[in-house]
Amino acid sequence: MAGGIGSRFWPMSRTALPKQFLDILGTGQSLIQDTFARYSKLVPEENIYIITSKEYVQTVRQQLKSLPEKNILAEPSRKNTATCIAYIAFKLLQKNPDAVMMAAPADNHIPDIDAFLVTAKKALEFVDSINALVTIGIKPTSPNTGYGYIQHESPEAAPGVYEVKTFTEKPNLELAETFLASGDFLWNAGIFTWKVKNILAAFEKYLPEIYEVFYAEKEKFNTEEEAEALEIIYPQCTNISIDFGIMEKADNVFVIPASFAWSDLGTWNSAWENTEKDEHQNAVAGNNVVIVEANNCMVHVPNNKLVMLQGLEDYIIVDTKDVLLICKRDKEQEIKDYVAEIKRNKGEKYL
Amino acid sequence: MAGGIGSRFWPMSRTALPKQFLDILGTGQSLIQDTFARYSKLVPEENIYIITSKEYVQTVRQQLKSLPEKNILAEPSRKNTATCIAYIAFKLLQKNPDAVMMAAPADNHIPDIDAFLVTAKKALEFVDSINALVTIGIKPTSPNTGYGYIQHESPEAAPGVYEVKTFTEKPNLELAETFLASGDFLWNAGIFTWKVKNILAAFEKYLPEIYEVFYAEKEKFNTEEEAEALEIIYPQCTNISIDFGIMEKADNVFVIPASFAWSDLGTWNSAWENTEKDEHQNAVAGNNVVIVEANNCMVHVPNNKLVMLQGLEDYIIVDTKDVLLICKRDKEQEIKDYVAEIKRNKGEKYL
Repeated sequence: MAGGIGSRFWPMSRTALPKQFLDILGTGQSLIQDTFARYSKLVPEENIYIITSKEYVQTVRQQLKSLPEKNILAEPSRKNTATCIAYIAFKLLQKNPDAVMMAAPADNHIPDIDAFLVTAKKALEFVDSINALVTIGIKPTSPNTGYGYIQHESPEAAPGVYEVKTFTEKPNLELAETFLASGDFLWNAGIFTWKVKNILAAFEKYLPEIYEVFYAEKEKFNTEEEAEALEIIYPQCTNISIDFGIMEKADNVFVIPASFAWSDLGTWNSAWENTEKDEHQNAVAGNNVVIVEANNCMVHVPNNKLVMLQGLEDYIIVDTKDVLLICKRDKEQEIKDYVAEIKRNKGEKYL
Repeated sequence: MAGGIGSRFWPMSRTALPKQFLDILGTGQSLIQDTFARYSKLVPEENIYIITSKEYVQTVRQQLKSLPEKNILAEPSRKNTATCIAYIAFKLLQKNPDAVMMAAPADNHIPDIDAFLVTAKKALEFVDSINALVTIGIKPTSPNTGYGYIQHESPEAAPGVYEVKTFTEKPNLELAETFLASGDFLWNAGIFTWKVKNILAAFEKYLPEIYEVFYAEKEKFNTEEEAEALEIIYPQCTNISIDFGIMEKADNVFVIPASFAWSDLGTWNSAWENTEKDEHQNAVAGNNVVIVEANNCMVHVPNNKLVMLQGLEDYIIVDTKDVLLICKRDKEQEIKDYVAEIKRNKGEKYL
C-alpha cells in the first residue's frame, strides 16, 4: 500500500513525491525500495502488488524496475485502507480462490529482514490452516502516542499467536504508559495476513456497502475493463480504514507478536530514532553538513548544499530546493498544521 | 572604497560577490548603490571614483550604470586603505592640485541622506580652508566592541569641529562602556576628508615607502599607462590602513561629529539593527517566510524559497542557493572563523 502523502515529513515529502518514494534515512534507498526488497525475500516478485494513486504509478515504475508493470495498481482516488484491500482481494480471488495475502504499508522501516521473514512466514502459515484475520503486533519500546495499540488475550491460541482482545486508537501519554507497563499491549503495525476468501467474507459481513460495489464489477478484474470498473467502484466506496471497518469488529482476529524492530517512520523523530547519529546525537542526512555546536538534531539537507549549524538543540532542520523548515523536535506533530497553514496562505505550490 | 570581501556576512557575502554588492537590508538596492546615490547628491557623478579589486570591475559597472567607466579604478591586489587612498590622491592631484577629496567605504548604511549632506559639506568646507585631515565621528549609541573609537579634545576648534586626541583600536566591552559614558569618544566611521595635497604630504612624512613608489610612477596616472604603473606600484606597497599609517600619527587630525545615524553593516547583527522588524523583533529579508514562533532573529533567505520557522530565539538564518547558515546571534563574530574552517575542509567552493 503506497498511496499516502506523508504530510508530517513535509517539506521533504511533497504531494508530487511523498514519503514512501524518498530516502528518508539517507540509506541510498527509498522506503518503498526497502519494503519491496524485504517482500522479495518472502514471495516471488510477480506476486507482489503495489497499490498507489494513479499519479504515482510512473514513480513506482521508476523505483521498482524489476516489478512487472501489471503489478502496479492505480487507485482512482484515495479511499483509505479498506477499499484498497477490497480491490486487491477481489483481484486475487479471481486468480486463485485459495490465495493467501499479506497487506502492508510501503513505508515501514524494518532493518532486520531475517527476523521479519520468520514472523511473516509464521503468519502466512497460520492463516493458511484456519479462518483467521491476522495482524502483526510490535512489542512496544516506549509509550508512543502516535501508534494504535492491540491488546491480546493469553495464553497463546497457537505457538506465538494470540487472540486479539481489543484494538485501541492512539492513546494519550498516561494511557500509553499503562499499556506499556501491562505487557499485553502491542503496537499495531498495519501488516495484515489472511486468506483472500476470508477477508472478503469479513467485508461482506462488516462492510457490505464496499463489498457489494466490488462484487457487482468483479468479472472485470484482471481484464482490460479493470480500470473502467474502478472508476465506477471507487466513488461509491466509504473512506474507512481496515482497522476500524473490520479488524475492530471481527471475532476471528489474531495477533502475532513480531520478533523484529519496526518503525512506521511516521515523523521526523522516528527518522531520527532510526538513523545513525554522531557523538552529539545528531542524525544527519547530507554530505556537506558542518556542525560547530548542535545536539539531538534531525538534519536532512541536499548533499550538494553546505550547511553550517551552531547553537542548536533538539531541532528538525530540513532543507529542499524550494522549502526550508526549522522547528523544534517536540513540535513534529504540528508539521501537519504548518502544511495546512502554508496551503491557506500560499496555495499548493509548496506542498 | 569597494574592495572588501565582507566575510562576516558569509554565506550571503561571497568571494565572487561580496557584501557591498548585495542587498543586505532587503531594500532593493545593494550597499554600493545606496552609497553611490548618497554621494551623487554631494558631488557630480563624474567626480565619484570607485576603487575596487579588478575582479569586481564588471559588477560595479553593472550596478552603477550611470557612473563613467573610467571612474571605476581597479586595484591589482588588496593592500588595505592607505595604498588605496594614495592611488586616488595621486590621480586627483594630477587633475587638480587644489582638489578636495572625501574617502569612504562603499558599504556604510546612512539612512538619512540630508543629515549626511549637512555633515559632509561642513567637512569639505573645513578642509578647503586649512591643512587638516578630517574624519567623521559617529556619536556612539551602544558600547559596540566592533568599532574603533576616536577621543576628541574640547572645546571646539571650529564650529562643530574638534581636534582629535587619540584613535583607539576596537575596545573590550568594559572599555567601550567607559568610552560611551565619557561623552568625548566617537565611533570611527572611516569617512575621511582632506585636500589631496595635504594627505599626500602626510603620506610623504608617515608612509614614505608608499609615497615614493607612487611618486616614481606619477606621470603615468590618467594615461594609458596607468594600469601598467599599478602593476609595478602595488606589489611594493605595505598592507596598512590609513588609520594606523597616518591618522593615528599626524598632528593635524580633526573630527566632525556626525548628525546622522550610521552603521558600517559589518555583521548580521548590524543588519538586524538596521532592518525593519516584525512584532517579535525578527528582521526578515525574504518574501516567503512563515514564522510560527521566533523572536529576535535575523532571517535572510531567497524570495522564492518558502521558509517555515518555529521555536527560534536570537538566531541568524541565512540561506543561499548552495549554503545554509544557522547560528546564534551572539556568535556572529565567529562567522569569520567558520568560513576559515570551511576553507580548510571544503576548499574555496563555498566561499
